[in-house]
Amino acid sequence: MTDESMRVPCRQLKLSNGDIIQLYDTAGPQGYAAGEGIPKRRDKWVAARRAAGDKTPTQMYYAKKGIITEEMQFVAMREKMDAEFVRSEVARGRAIIPANINHPELEPMIIGRNFLVKINANIGNSALASSIDEEVEKLRWATKWGADTVMDLSTGKNIHQTREHIIRNAAVPIGTVPIYQALEKVKGKAEELNIDIFLETLIEQAEQGVDYFTIHAGVLLKYIPLTANRVTGIVSRGGSIMAKWCLAHHKENFLYTHFEDICEVMKKYDVSFSLGDGLRPGSTADANDEAQFSELRTLGELTQVAWKHNVQTMIEGPGHVPMHMIKENMDLQLEICHEAPFYTLGPLVTDIAPGYDHITSAIGAAMIGWYGTAMLCYVTPKEHLGLPDKDDVKQGVITYKIAAHAADLAKNHPGARERDDALSKARFEFRWEDQFDLSLDPETARKYHDQTLPQDGMKKAHFCSMCGPHFCSMKITQDVREISQGLEAKSEEFKARGGEIYV
Amino acid sequence: MTDESMRVPCRQLKLSNGDIIQLYDTAGPQGYAAGEGIPKRRDKWVAARRAAGDKTPTQMYYAKKGIITEEMQFVAMREKMDAEFVRSEVARGRAIIPANINHPELEPMIIGRNFLVKINANIGNSALASSIDEEVEKLRWATKWGADTVMDLSTGKNIHQTREHIIRNAAVPIGTVPIYQALEKVKGKAEELNIDIFLETLIEQAEQGVDYFTIHAGVLLKYIPLTANRVTGIVSRGGSIMAKWCLAHHKENFLYTHFEDICEVMKKYDVSFSLGDGLRPGSTADANDEAQFSELRTLGELTQVAWKHNVQTMIEGPGHVPMHMIKENMDLQLEICHEAPFYTLGPLVTDIAPGYDHITSAIGAAMIGWYGTAMLCYVTPKEHLGLPDKDDVKQGVITYKIAAHAADLAKNHPGARERDDALSKARFEFRWEDQFDLSLDPETARKYHDQTLPQDGMKKAHFCSMCGPHFCSMKITQDVREISQGLEAKSEEFKARGGEIYV
Repeated sequence: MTDESMRVPCRQLKLSNGDIIQLYDTAGPQGYAAGEGIPKRRDKWVAARRAAGDKTPTQMYYAKKGIITEEMQFVAMREKMDAEFVRSEVARGRAIIPANINHPELEPMIIGRNFLVKINANIGNSALASSIDEEVEKLRWATKWGADTVMDLSTGKNIHQTREHIIRNAAVPIGTVPIYQALEKVKGKAEELNIDIFLETLIEQAEQGVDYFTIHAGVLLKYIPLTANRVTGIVSRGGSIMAKWCLAHHKENFLYTHFEDICEVMKKYDVSFSLGDGLRPGSTADANDEAQFSELRTLGELTQVAWKHNVQTMIEGPGHVPMHMIKENMDLQLEICHEAPFYTLGPLVTDIAPGYDHITSAIGAAMIGWYGTAMLCYVTPKEHLGLPDKDDVKQGVITYKIAAHAADLAKNHPGARERDDALSKARFEFRWEDQFDLSLDPETARKYHDQTLPQDGMKKAHFCSMCGPHFCSMKITQDVREISQGLEAKSEEFKARGGEIYV
Repeated sequence: MTDESMRVPCRQLKLSNGDIIQLYDTAGPQGYAAGEGIPKRRDKWVAARRAAGDKTPTQMYYAKKGIITEEMQFVAMREKMDAEFVRSEVARGRAIIPANINHPELEPMIIGRNFLVKINANIGNSALASSIDEEVEKLRWATKWGADTVMDLSTGKNIHQTREHIIRNAAVPIGTVPIYQALEKVKGKAEELNIDIFLETLIEQAEQGVDYFTIHAGVLLKYIPLTANRVTGIVSRGGSIMAKWCLAHHKENFLYTHFEDICEVMKKYDVSFSLGDGLRPGSTADANDEAQFSELRTLGELTQVAWKHNVQTMIEGPGHVPMHMIKENMDLQLEICHEAPFYTLGPLVTDIAPGYDHITSAIGAAMIGWYGTAMLCYVTPKEHLGLPDKDDVKQGVITYKIAAHAADLAKNHPGARERDDALSKARFEFRWEDQFDLSLDPETARKYHDQTLPQDGMKKAHFCSMCGPHFCSMKITQDVREISQGLEAKSEEFKARGGEIYV
């Protein structure tokens, strides 16, 4: 009898030449109404642990005890890796499986540099725009195109209810930045924040099933003056809120001083830390400065505190960094943060292209992914300019799938090449439909082909639309191959007769 | 009296804070009808050399003789570099100034790794589509957005006339692939090509004023079998034409055997070589293989032959290359081709995103530009799928401006940071209009901002549209800065009174 809860999702393609290709898939169960929510596959797994009375039901806790959880098994199958290897990476802190015990709808996934590079899509309404239904639709849309996790960054009204709908419909881990909601509770006055309001907010969100929290506990009082001469100061919302609090009270960041209290909440629900980089550079001018790296050192220190509590942890990274300064970020992070997974926003490699920052940042994201970043936070074309709409979300996700996959290829990740090679082969053999189906965005690929060659027959045409029927290099090459194989056969024949080879 | 012909184009911005920024500009003279053509600024310069009876009027010839031409002076002002340095780089073969003596409309520019990284845009009709006027309009459109050179890759009817209109309206160097027209002359039958038809075509195009020719002289007979087991064989049109010719005759490539005859034509007009990479990989699977690098070695040999004739030369490069294999291309090219400028198509770092190959290739382009490539050939979203329309051309150009500029930043090119820093400062100070004006595509940046905050007053709003008025990190940071400066002032006061500093 197969266990339905262990069925791993994938998109299976049967190509016209008979080849079967299985693609990693994040879309989740389809056909459920937003109000209804998707099936709760993890219910049984978590119930068993509750029955056993586990007080620290985190994946890291089980991993350290040598237990391979259902989540680890699931992830291992999904990544085509060994389950024991998954366990050891989680135990070591080199990978995390964000999986709140109150998010039974989750299809578990893993974030770590020895696995496929993942991408996150941000959604969420602001005081200025958008409704709950729109946000659930953005979740579905983002995961349809390949988002591995989704962060709900809502700051406007109905934060709680919006989040509830998102989690109940999410097969991917959901992340939040709890300080946003805490700030709403004190009517936007940063100086009125305190640890009690913060912990209350954490518990509220953890109860709902949020899988990871961005927490800006590394913005220390002494680092704030280091930002004063920056070109763009502090650009992280969470970072600037905490900086304001610290300055207003001239006291140390309460997220830092109460970090162990926060760990107590995290471990109870298995919420993972995403230790926020509140002092990340907001311009290439500010990249890799003392403020940024000082905070990183503190995040390294906090990582060890979190691990002591068996709380899974990843580290957030920049931001805006020119290409030649990217590698230093990765190398330092690995060293300082004891190989906890790195989760970067881009980085953007230039500041001069608002409207195209999905591209400026994909360049940096692909590179830092190659160097070892485990998850890339997408950037949409609207970055710096406005709120992303549905098409922006799609552009951001596809662009980041490109960056993540390019990184997998550059890391020689097992199996990463399969899809490239299948698509290239389809291209060379003029199997247009296979080429479209294998691409990250079959709809767009098909549409672009249609614009030049709309007829249906042209989907079987033995030429590229760029060159026309009499001028196609691929067609010529096939002739070349035939002639060349003919020559080879002749040469073999010659050798077989005992002849000498001429050069 | 100022010499009008030496006036260097630039786009000057006066920002709202009084700062003046000058941006490199490629748009050329405006307001001329397509039939009329643009002014011929180089007429006098070239006439003087003709009067002097110079037989080899190439920039390399003059450079080697120690002469700083008007073109070199112009380029030096344009790049804010020393004219003597420009001369020495051209003499050394490390940079080229493509400038056919019959292209007087040209605003000279330089391609070399010690100068700004340049980008090329391909235009041109095919047997299947588009008119002469459309192509002239594409030229103007591409240079409006920043194309440094334009290649006319027409293969359909009216090749000669289309090219004539393009050159007479081009302030940027125009490149072509003459084998395309030669093939038209033999009605598409590659095996009927010969050196006489080819030379006749070269002269026809050189007379018109084409500034550089892609010539696939490195596709040697013995290299062709090396492509037989590739996933995507030969994907260069020129390469496949020559391969077919070689196999049909079982003879060496006539472009190779007659290379010195070709040099004789090039030097007479100062047409630059763009030595084509006919065996470039068409998929990441085929990257850096023996076929590709064998051809590169031959191109290095031909570079020295060209230089002996004082013909300026650059080398074309791939193609499709995963990130970790890009640097090897650049290092080998520098070594084998004696530092002649490298001119690459992308490279695309993955094959799985048809419809988004401007992005897959911009990742590779930015990286190889950083490593030392002098010019990047753009790729549009229609690559592999169809012919680019106007919007595709714009997407390709902007995306490649990003890659080229990111490379300039990573190389610490003098002055490259100025625009980034000015834009970041404008962003931080909520000078929205300055931010738009400084961006690569002000129209799109403004449009995106309008979608969220359409009111005119919002262009002076002191908050970002992402966060809303009460929640803006930039706003909070400005508060932080004020408080922080207050603290600093207090600290100074304290020190001034002779007090001890506390940590």
